[in-house]
Amino acid sequence: MGFLIDRRLQRVEKEISQAVIARLPRYFRYLGELKDQGRERISSRELSRLMHVTASQIRQDLNNFGGFGQQGYGYNVEYLYAEIGKILGLDKTHHLIIIGAGNLGQALANYMNFERRGFIFTGIFDINRELHGKKIRGIRVRPMEEMQRFVRENNIDIAVLTIPKDGAEAAAQKLTEAGIKAIWNFAHMDLDVPEYVQVENVHLSDSLIKLSYMINQYENGK
Amino acid sequence: MGFLIDRRLQRVEKEISQAVIARLPRYFRYLGELKDQGRERISSRELSRLMHVTASQIRQDLNNFGGFGQQGYGYNVEYLYAEIGKILGLDKTHHLIIIGAGNLGQALANYMNFERRGFIFTGIFDINRELHGKKIRGIRVRPMEEMQRFVRENNIDIAVLTIPKDGAEAAAQKLTEAGIKAIWNFAHMDLDVPEYVQVENVHLSDSLIKLSYMINQYENGK
Repeated sequence: MGFLIDRRLQRVEKEISQAVIARLPRYFRYLGELKDQGRERISSRELSRLMHVTASQIRQDLNNFGGFGQQGYGYNVEYLYAEIGKILGLDKTHHLIIIGAGNLGQALANYMNFERRGFIFTGIFDINRELHGKKIRGIRVRPMEEMQRFVRENNIDIAVLTIPKDGAEAAAQKLTEAGIKAIWNFAHMDLDVPEYVQVENVHLSDSLIKLSYMINQYENGK
Repeated sequence: MGFLIDRRLQRVEKEISQAVIARLPRYFRYLGELKDQGRERISSRELSRLMHVTASQIRQDLNNFGGFGQQGYGYNVEYLYAEIGKILGLDKTHHLIIIGAGNLGQALANYMNFERRGFIFTGIFDINRELHGKKIRGIRVRPMEEMQRFVRENNIDIAVLTIPKDGAEAAAQKLTEAGIKAIWNFAHMDLDVPEYVQVENVHLSDSLIKLSYMINQYENGK
């Protein structure tokens, strides 16, 4: 009986975290901007106005991590930014490769902002021979055959999948064999990998379709 | 009192829909694939195995829209695909412009799959004079000054924002003035637009940061 209650509590705790976790990158983003503006501290009320979230939501969310605020003082921006960064694993450096040197792969390779957060663009791979040797941000496109060895030898954590779905499943399997920790998946499909490989999907078509739904709903409601 | 109960029921109904709605593009994707494979019907059990969702979840979700299944027969793939498409507004054509002709803007312009879903790429705009006149999928890059007139004259529904956050807010305001219905926002910020403008954010950094969090959690839990 006690065991059952414990398990239930654990589950509740985990659920709370999941919802909060989903909001953490956004807190991190706003705090980063405040830090860049030279702000030293901020009240939950002001942060609430800025982020369009209730102040009590902010206090509740941040309390999950020991509550970094002080009554009457508010939050120390730099400290809170650093602490949330640690929770998000951003105090560590991640080495990242991109699979697919097409438009999207190149766009992501050139997205400088990732580097600022400790995501180091280390390699890019493509099956297209014509692209091999071409340099993207100083890094040459390599053939897919070199991928597994490259992952093993260069301590690669994250692979970004930007190839069409035909090749995505096979690539994900090869990455898994090579010991990749995580896949950032832009392929238009859900990957079937072991649960020790973390997957974050960016299904662009699904996102655009959601927008179509919102337009439709709004127009039907008028 | 009756009024209060009614309002509460309405709210519950709305909440259910929101969760279901978020899952609809994924149903649509899987049904589209089945359709392409020539499948005529599918049971909730098989769809469940395919999508890694419980069969009862599937039945519940689809029941929200009148339930398209028949006992012992399952779902008619083409019918269900078409019906979900209608709910998602995909039976209509949407005209889309892209703001920002950088790597990401070009990648999205070249993403043929969108066209298949009725999202017609109609124009692309950039402040960079050197890009003006350059053709992307047969459509020339125009100066930002022409954007508002273009939106009004070409019945544009959706604008895709792929510019840095410095210019994103101003662009969103101009688009709103010109009567845009929806913004697909890739800028690394939350937009402040009236609620009749639908916004769907794709915050790539937030997504990558979530992956960092998952790696961190997994390694701490080992």
